[in-house]
Amino acid sequence: MPEELYEKEHLYPPEEYVRVDADSLKEFVSSVYQKLGLRKEYADRIADNLVAADLMGISSHGVQRIRRYIGGIRVGSINLNPRIRIVADAGAAALVDGDNGPGQVVGTYAMNLAIEKAKKYGVGVVFVRRSHHYGIAGYYALMAVEHNMIGVSMTNARPLVAYVNTLSKYLGTNPIAIAAPRRNPPPFLFDAATSTVPVGKVEIYAKTGKKVPHGWAVSLEDGRELTGDAAPILDAIKKGKAALLPLGGLGEETGGHKGTGFALIVELLSAIVSGAAWTIHVRNTTDPQPANVGHFFMAINIGALMPLEEFYDRLEKMIEEIKNLPKHPQADRIWIPGEKAWLTMQTRKKIGIPLHRNVFNDLKKVAEEVGVPFTVKVLKETA
Amino acid sequence: MPEELYEKEHLYPPEEYVRVDADSLKEFVSSVYQKLGLRKEYADRIADNLVAADLMGISSHGVQRIRRYIGGIRVGSINLNPRIRIVADAGAAALVDGDNGPGQVVGTYAMNLAIEKAKKYGVGVVFVRRSHHYGIAGYYALMAVEHNMIGVSMTNARPLVAYVNTLSKYLGTNPIAIAAPRRNPPPFLFDAATSTVPVGKVEIYAKTGKKVPHGWAVSLEDGRELTGDAAPILDAIKKGKAALLPLGGLGEETGGHKGTGFALIVELLSAIVSGAAWTIHVRNTTDPQPANVGHFFMAINIGALMPLEEFYDRLEKMIEEIKNLPKHPQADRIWIPGEKAWLTMQTRKKIGIPLHRNVFNDLKKVAEEVGVPFTVKVLKETA
Repeated sequence: MPEELYEKEHLYPPEEYVRVDADSLKEFVSSVYQKLGLRKEYADRIADNLVAADLMGISSHGVQRIRRYIGGIRVGSINLNPRIRIVADAGAAALVDGDNGPGQVVGTYAMNLAIEKAKKYGVGVVFVRRSHHYGIAGYYALMAVEHNMIGVSMTNARPLVAYVNTLSKYLGTNPIAIAAPRRNPPPFLFDAATSTVPVGKVEIYAKTGKKVPHGWAVSLEDGRELTGDAAPILDAIKKGKAALLPLGGLGEETGGHKGTGFALIVELLSAIVSGAAWTIHVRNTTDPQPANVGHFFMAINIGALMPLEEFYDRLEKMIEEIKNLPKHPQADRIWIPGEKAWLTMQTRKKIGIPLHRNVFNDLKKVAEEVGVPFTVKVLKETA
Repeated sequence: MPEELYEKEHLYPPEEYVRVDADSLKEFVSSVYQKLGLRKEYADRIADNLVAADLMGISSHGVQRIRRYIGGIRVGSINLNPRIRIVADAGAAALVDGDNGPGQVVGTYAMNLAIEKAKKYGVGVVFVRRSHHYGIAGYYALMAVEHNMIGVSMTNARPLVAYVNTLSKYLGTNPIAIAAPRRNPPPFLFDAATSTVPVGKVEIYAKTGKKVPHGWAVSLEDGRELTGDAAPILDAIKKGKAALLPLGGLGEETGGHKGTGFALIVELLSAIVSGAAWTIHVRNTTDPQPANVGHFFMAINIGALMPLEEFYDRLEKMIEEIKNLPKHPQADRIWIPGEKAWLTMQTRKKIGIPLHRNVFNDLKKVAEEVGVPFTVKVLKETA
């Protein structure tokens, strides 16, 4: 990849941002959770996951979510000292009970278990119940890459998406992530909600005055597809009068049954087989009752099947072919899944993470409320 | 499910069809392949796969493809006596070399191996190289269901689909199928191309005069999305001047990068890890050089993780909730993946398979050419 300063998100004007140092941000976030009673190892894990999202340009899943887990800890739904245990172990497949621990802690435990199993049996598959929201799905898939393995990660979530042919908000945005090592970074990383867009995208369009295209949202009142001005669509979603559409959009003609099917597969593997809550039964992190989120993890030990160098050769040849395809006139460039996030991460490790001023100020308030020093280093007053 | 005569496809006027007996169709197709030198077990397998597609209402993958494999056998690319072997075995994961045998024979071998591994280790994963076109992906996923397991099946294929942000025909329609047992039939079965539609759908729209909507096809000349009259679009696809679009449509705004990503995952798991040909390197079945198609199979042993009855209860409860969602005003009914295919199969087992007259007449011609009696039983002169 070329040495360049690339950032995936260019959302709002630079003056709305403060650019901060990633490491200090991570330490600060961890200090907040430690103060609330989490052991350092667990607090570090949540902080690492949130800051990884900011580094990768997925700010919707970044430190702006700090209060979600604070709320879960305060209300007691997140167990500070979970006894994470293996409920069933069939050799290469296992079922893990997260005992309502932080999703990032439970997820990391389970993915590590899948990796251990893949070392022994070529593949490891771990199903998880009684977990919490685990942040970005790709985080866990990438853990396998560090072991030269292919990693898969899925999770269910609270519903926001219309099941095809219904006026409902029945499905979560249920992401599917798969990562594979390449000879040199960036790794291959596909990490996508099974809806056309996450709700955060509608928020960005509303704030920047962009028009919502086909395939994003549907009215739950009359079934009309919602396009055009994003602000009223966002408003309708927030009021429960509209839902996001599954990948493929409204109805079966453009493939809405396929996005629905992918979301159902995530429910099947994350929740139905694991014993977790499914769709409408998943609770909010800040609900007094545990969320009972379900996850699915898989690790595939490439080296047990084919010499790694051969795998790398083959993958690079395919990627080179893709890079040499004729570019669509309206596209900026041809991307391989994972490149945007990786370039953004390299850039932000160098020049810092742009935090929206509202988020930055809220972190300060969190520091005061929780009673920890605000130690986030500002690198630049704009982004 | 209600007892009713339901058929998924209602394509052309009834008088264009002949309705034939499924068993006699299967026996006839098998007799053709046996006459060409395949042992009965192998010929039966191909015939079973093709007729299963017709029974399930996926006629694009049914007996109308009989000549594809005849061509492959005659040209020598399909090995009549393959030495299918396990190249690498890590316990729960294995790599199989199909020795250019018929895709259905190789696929069945590999899925059975995945099932055996899942019995032992809770999960079995099998990667396949040097295979041929294997018919409908769901056929193999359903094999796991017979063992009360969840089955996954993927295959790559010759390219027809534009990689997002390019003017190319680089990706196959690369289907992903996943099936799960239910307490009573139909099993859950999601089986979908990772493009918005397969090319067969454009053919149907062209023949029936329907308009192609957003998200199906793109001009490779100027990158315009192609909508409207289906006949010229089909023509452009056939002339290599247009390509199918990935699920999510043209560009990233409506999710074209997601369909692209799913297709790439199929390449990664079916071809890159297995040593099969990827995308543009996959050959036609009738090419003198073997196609070197790649497949991926997985079986998950539910009972090793959770009592089967509990799994069934949970799945049925979710399905009941879905069935009770408010229906979209434009939808005929709310479907669970697999129901349409299963109802169609029940119907066609009873009243026969509707074969288009062109296909029926071609089968007669095949009988003559190959030198076997035409033993397909006609049940009704129309459909």
